[in-house]
Order: sequence, then C-alpha cells, then structure tokens
Amino acid sequence: LRARERDAVLARLEELHAADIADLIEQADPAERADLIDLLPAELDGEVLSYLNPDLREALIERFEPQELAAAVADLDTDDAVELIEDLDAETRAQILAKLPDAERALVQENLTYDEDSAGRMMQRELVAVPEFWTVGKTIDFVRAATDTLPEDFYDIFIVDPMHRVVGAVPLSRLLRQRRAVRIADLVTGEVDVIPATMERAEVANLFRQYALVSAPVVDPAGRLIGVITVDDVVRIIDEEAEDDLRKLSGSGDTGVFSGIADIARGRVGWLTVNLATAFLASGVISLFEATIEQIVALAVLMPIVASMGGNAGTQTLTVVVRALATHELSSANAMRVVGKELLVGLINGGIFAVMVGVIALLWYGPMIGIVIALAMIINLVVAGLSGALIPLGLEKLGVDPAVSSAVFLTTVTDVIGFLAFLGLASAFLL
Amino acid sequence: LRARERDAVLARLEELHAADIADLIEQADPAERADLIDLLPAELDGEVLSYLNPDLREALIERFEPQELAAAVADLDTDDAVELIEDLDAETRAQILAKLPDAERALVQENLTYDEDSAGRMMQRELVAVPEFWTVGKTIDFVRAATDTLPEDFYDIFIVDPMHRVVGAVPLSRLLRQRRAVRIADLVTGEVDVIPATMERAEVANLFRQYALVSAPVVDPAGRLIGVITVDDVVRIIDEEAEDDLRKLSGSGDTGVFSGIADIARGRVGWLTVNLATAFLASGVISLFEATIEQIVALAVLMPIVASMGGNAGTQTLTVVVRALATHELSSANAMRVVGKELLVGLINGGIFAVMVGVIALLWYGPMIGIVIALAMIINLVVAGLSGALIPLGLEKLGVDPAVSSAVFLTTVTDVIGFLAFLGLASAFLL
Repeated sequence: LRARERDAVLARLEELHAADIADLIEQADPAERADLIDLLPAELDGEVLSYLNPDLREALIERFEPQELAAAVADLDTDDAVELIEDLDAETRAQILAKLPDAERALVQENLTYDEDSAGRMMQRELVAVPEFWTVGKTIDFVRAATDTLPEDFYDIFIVDPMHRVVGAVPLSRLLRQRRAVRIADLVTGEVDVIPATMERAEVANLFRQYALVSAPVVDPAGRLIGVITVDDVVRIIDEEAEDDLRKLSGSGDTGVFSGIADIARGRVGWLTVNLATAFLASGVISLFEATIEQIVALAVLMPIVASMGGNAGTQTLTVVVRALATHELSSANAMRVVGKELLVGLINGGIFAVMVGVIALLWYGPMIGIVIALAMIINLVVAGLSGALIPLGLEKLGVDPAVSSAVFLTTVTDVIGFLAFLGLASAFLL
Repeated sequence: LRARERDAVLARLEELHAADIADLIEQADPAERADLIDLLPAELDGEVLSYLNPDLREALIERFEPQELAAAVADLDTDDAVELIEDLDAETRAQILAKLPDAERALVQENLTYDEDSAGRMMQRELVAVPEFWTVGKTIDFVRAATDTLPEDFYDIFIVDPMHRVVGAVPLSRLLRQRRAVRIADLVTGEVDVIPATMERAEVANLFRQYALVSAPVVDPAGRLIGVITVDDVVRIIDEEAEDDLRKLSGSGDTGVFSGIADIARGRVGWLTVNLATAFLASGVISLFEATIEQIVALAVLMPIVASMGGNAGTQTLTVVVRALATHELSSANAMRVVGKELLVGLINGGIFAVMVGVIALLWYGPMIGIVIALAMIINLVVAGLSGALIPLGLEKLGVDPAVSSAVFLTTVTDVIGFLAFLGLASAFLL
C-alpha cells in the first residue's frame, strides 16, 4: 500500500512548483517530512531546499550525502547556493564546496567573504553586461547565442566601460522597443543606482523601495560590476526585516514556529530576564509606599491601571516612531516636530482618560482617590508619549538599533513613573 | 534673495528622482513644504505626488487646481492615477475625472469599482498581450511599433486566446533568447499565476512572495485579461501589511508621523479604552483580596511582577504566531504542534523564572512568599504560552484578524490569571 501511495504522491509532486513542495514539507508532521524528502527527484532538491524555512532546512540537510548536496547546489544561481550552504557547519560546507565545479566554487567562496547582512552575500553572480559601443542588435544576438552562461531570468542589461565599471542600466522592455541599429549606450536614462558590495541589506531594501527597482548592479570598491541583486530577493529581505522589527519589539528572539523547543525557550529568556529586572525596579518603587498602602488598600487595587495605561500609550508611540525610523520617514530634520506632536497627543489622551478613570475611581473609592488617579494618569500619559518618541530617537542617535531595546526602557519608565506619581500623590494628599 | 534661492533649488530639483523630491517635501517643515510644491515643474507633479506619504498628499493636494491635477493624473499609469485620486473627496475626484481623456477616465473609473484592498484597485491597465499564434519576431516588431500604448516598463508578455483569456506568460529575458521564427506560445513553461480582480491584496502579496513573481496578469470573472500587477506595487503592499500588523498589535491606529495631532489622538483612544476596561477587570480581581493585602502589604509590592512577566511571555508567543499565520507558515495542519511547543516553552521558562523570582522574594519577604510567587509564576507563564498561541489561532478560525485583537485578550488573561494565582495562593497558604 505504502509503495503505491508513493507513486501517486510522486506524480503530484512533479506537477508542483518548488515553493509549494517546500510548503508541503513545512506543513507535514516530522515523520512524514523525511519520507517526502526521500521521495523528491534529485534535480528538484536544490530549489526546494532553498525555499524551505531555514530552521527546517538545517534539520533536513543532514539526510543528504555531500555529493548529492553539491549536485543540488551546483544547479542553483550563486545567491541561492550561498543561502543554502552559509548556515552549514564548517565541515559539511567544506565537503560541498570541494565537490563544486571550480568556477562556481570560486564565486560562492567570494560571496561568503562578505558580511552576512551585506549586498555581497546576497548578490547573484550570473548577469548580462555589454560594452558601451554595442548596438541593440548585437546585444540581442549575444543573448541569443550565450544561453548557457546567462542567468535564468534577468530584467536589466548593464553597460560597462573597458574597466568593467557600470556606466548604465537598460531595462529589457526599453531594449525591446528599439531598432537593432540603435547604440545601447543611448538608451541609458538617468543615473544607475549602484550598490556597493558592503552595503547592508536593509539599505539595499530601502534603495529598491525608494526607486521601485527590479534589479540593481553590485560593485566592488573600484566600481567594477561583480553581481546583481533582483527584487525577489529584496522581497524576502523586506519580509525578514519587518519580522525582525516585530521580534525585537516583543523580545521573541530569532526563533519561529519551526524551531526546536530548547532553542525557543533559550531565545526568550534574555528578554524576560531584563523584564524581570525592570519589574523588580517597579516593585522597589511600590515598596517605598508600603505604609501608605497599608492604610489605603484601594491604592493597591488601582495602581496597576496607571502603569498599564502608560505602558500601552507609550507602546503606541514607540511603534510608530520605530517604524518611521526604519523606513526613513523620520530623520533629525523632523524629529523634534514628532516629539512635540506626541507630547500633545499624550496631553489630550491623558486628559480624556484622566476623566474616565477619575470618575470610576471616585464612584468606587470616593472623590479624593478619583482626583489623585486622574492627575497620575495625565502625568504618566505625557511621560509615555515623550519617552515613546525620545527613547528610540536617542538609541538611534547612539547607534543602537531602536527596535531591540526601546520597549524595555519604555515600560520601565512608564511603570516607575506610574507607580511613583499615583502612590506619591496619594501619600501627599490622602494621608 | 528668496528669488535667487528659488532658481538654485529648482535646478537641484530637476536633477532628482521623483521619490527623492517627495522625501525632501516630507522632511521639510510645513512652511517650506508649500514653497517646494509651488516650485515643482508641472510635468513632475503627478509622479512626486504618487511617491508622497498619503497623509501629506491629502494636505498638499488642495493647493492644486483640478485642471492641474487632471494633467498630472493623465501622465500616470492607471494604478498610480487611481492611488492618487481614490482618497480625494467625491467632488474633487469628479472634477478631476471629468477633465481626463475619455479612454483613461473609463479605465480609472473601472478600477475604482473594485474593493479598496483588492487586486482590481491596484492593477495597471497598460500591458502587453499577444495572440498565441504570433512568433517571437512578430512580437518584437509589435512592441517596437506600438510604443505609445504600452506601459513604460514591463517584464512579461501575456499570451491570450481569441476570447482574451490568459493562456501563458513569457518573461522578456526568455523572449530575448529565442530566434525570431519561434512561436511565442512554445515559450510558455508551466501554468501562469492568474490573479482574479477580486483577490485581496494581502493574498496578491503572498502569491508574489511564494513564486518570486515580477509581474502577474489580473483577470475578470470570465478569465479575460484586464490588467497587470507589478512587483514594485507588491513591495509597497508588503511594507504596508507589515506595518499594519505592527500597528494592530500595538493599537497605534492607522496614523503615522505625518498625521495631524487630533487624528493621532483619536486613532489611539479606541485601543486605550479597551485596555482601560481590561485594567479595571484586573483591578476587580485584586479588590477580591483587599483583606489579604491589608494584612500582607508585600503582596501589593510583588503582584505586578507576576502579571508583567506573564504579559511579556505571552506577547513573545503571540508575535511569533500572528506573524506565522500572516505568512501562511502556520495552518490547521501544524497548529496543534505549535500549541504543544508553546506549552512546553511556558513550562520551561516558568520553571526558570519561578526559581529566580522565588529566591529574590524569599530573601526580601521570607520563604512562604517565595514559594507562593514561584508557583504563581509557573502557572502564569504556562497560561501565557497557551493563550499566546490559542488566542490568535481561535480568532483566525472565527474569521477575525488575529493581529488586531489578540493583544488585548492576551494581556487580560495574563493579568487576571497572574493576580488571581498569586493573591489566591497567598490567601490560601499565608493567612
């Protein structure tokens, strides 16, 4: 029975896109995963592996012989090949590299010399470059003749000078529109957006986003064309960067739904420890007012409200500011205007919620407690708005990634100020 | 002086990409913005406006006469034209539409009949479609001759049958490689990913992401080709969707750094009100134990720690699960495995932090309080892991966007259970 099922599954698999096969493997339970991988026809392995979630890929890659992996890697464009082997342990990586054709090995190894988050690491080496003096006709003939050495898909033809420096880029649709006799250099409009191999990938994404690029040339320090980055890779980077921001803000570490339990737990302990420290700091503030709380227990009942509203309002500001910094909407030119706005928003919403909370507290525990909590609420929401904007701006200025550390600082401030304002005002006015 | 400056600025502006001019306007202070807009040469207006942040665009668009706007809109591809006028009030929109050339008006109006978040709204109507029986040579000749009616840039040539239904797509790089005599229909490999005009834009983004597409055809219910979506628009959508998720999780509303103060404040009140309600719910739980707190004030000092650690641990899980749902990594097939993992992670981290918190509390307030807070910590971190996974999964199953409402439910649960477990155990064991 199992064997007959195999044939049916195999027939289905062969009809599917590599990305869909990767999805199937991700959704399967761990026992089925191994079976699925074993079923895959050899020529599919490389592409399917490159679409797979990295956590799963690492676990499954052990099932292959280095020889098989090398064959799979050799079929891929350099960027996908690099992605596949960069996370392997040094020994497996060396085994696979040794089995690659010489030319490909040199390119892959060169990519690996660049920083993990750099353009050089993600670039594809296969590209189409022609000299300035060529015509449209000669370029088309070249592409028709040279099918083997060209990338599978390309979107721009790069024009290089004799030193192989980029002097222009011509989108295929523009090339296609012209008569054969036209010089290709005459089709260049505007400056070409050149990417240094050392540029960080977040900056690469910003460049593609800003100028709606589909592909862009990567150059070495001498300005020589060494690779190309295409938009499909940038889409993946944009997704990963957005996910990174989310994870950093929530402190969920760099693990996902496919990570192992121990990795997940370990990835989150750091953030929780920092939070524990700030929680004890807040407790320390409360303990200053033990005598007051002993006399008026209502304070213990109501105090989390002030802290929690401050934390939430501050997080709202923080999210907007962190995101605007990441997308370059926010810069030193307009930073102070944004801080001013957030201060006013804090004042407005502080006023609104002061009334709401004040009235409820008044009905519950009497007028004086109502007034005290209303005042504390205004103070904490103004502080929340200011810190939500100033903390990430300050961290950015210090060269620290605002996404990763802002949230801890913020909740520390809103907790401490929340408890201090409420319990402090209560001690002053209610005793 | 001001006039001489003007010329210099104008000269600089003309060298810049429309996206960079839009950035300049965004970074300028409000007074300079109007000056900059007035300086722009008329033919640039449309493109610059379409790159501008929507909040700013709305404010600046009033400075133009409908006549000028119509001229600017007419220069744009349909998708950009639609984006520019969709947010205008009905009257201005009608004025601009009336001044457009008939053919363009019909297309723009048709796009506007589709849902705001649908493929039909974001598609571009300018595209290249050829019949199945054409050759590569005929297709190239057609493109060379028909420069006026074609889009500025295109990446795929779509092949249609006599009913104008899509039967295939050929990337330009594949077309360019073939001899002129080859039939274009023979270049089609695999099925073409066709987008129904009613598809939601988040799904469109997933399709592009999944199959690394650069452009894809949009079809009407009869399967007829009516438009094309290109990857540059999808990049924008991916950014906006990621931002949406962040904003929904933090409740910061749909305003950004360029929104007006009143809009920002209003956009955030809803979320804060919901949080206020849940904060009072937590207060209600605390008030059940007023008598206990009156006798042991240490409880008031320590109780925020249990609630806050639960909230943080739950948010970590929540972030990972919401994101995995959005990117389709998580489905009903592997949901229960993920819930199981999170339960175990909650148990492991609960154990670790129970020891840490327990020891500190013991040193501070004695052994019994240490044991009680350690137990409460384990309970709350397990509950946090379970709710962090189950709440978004449940909301998704009910058809509610998990990003928008998960966080409130989660912190309600972790606050209530945190206070209940800690104060309840304290009442049972310490009195």
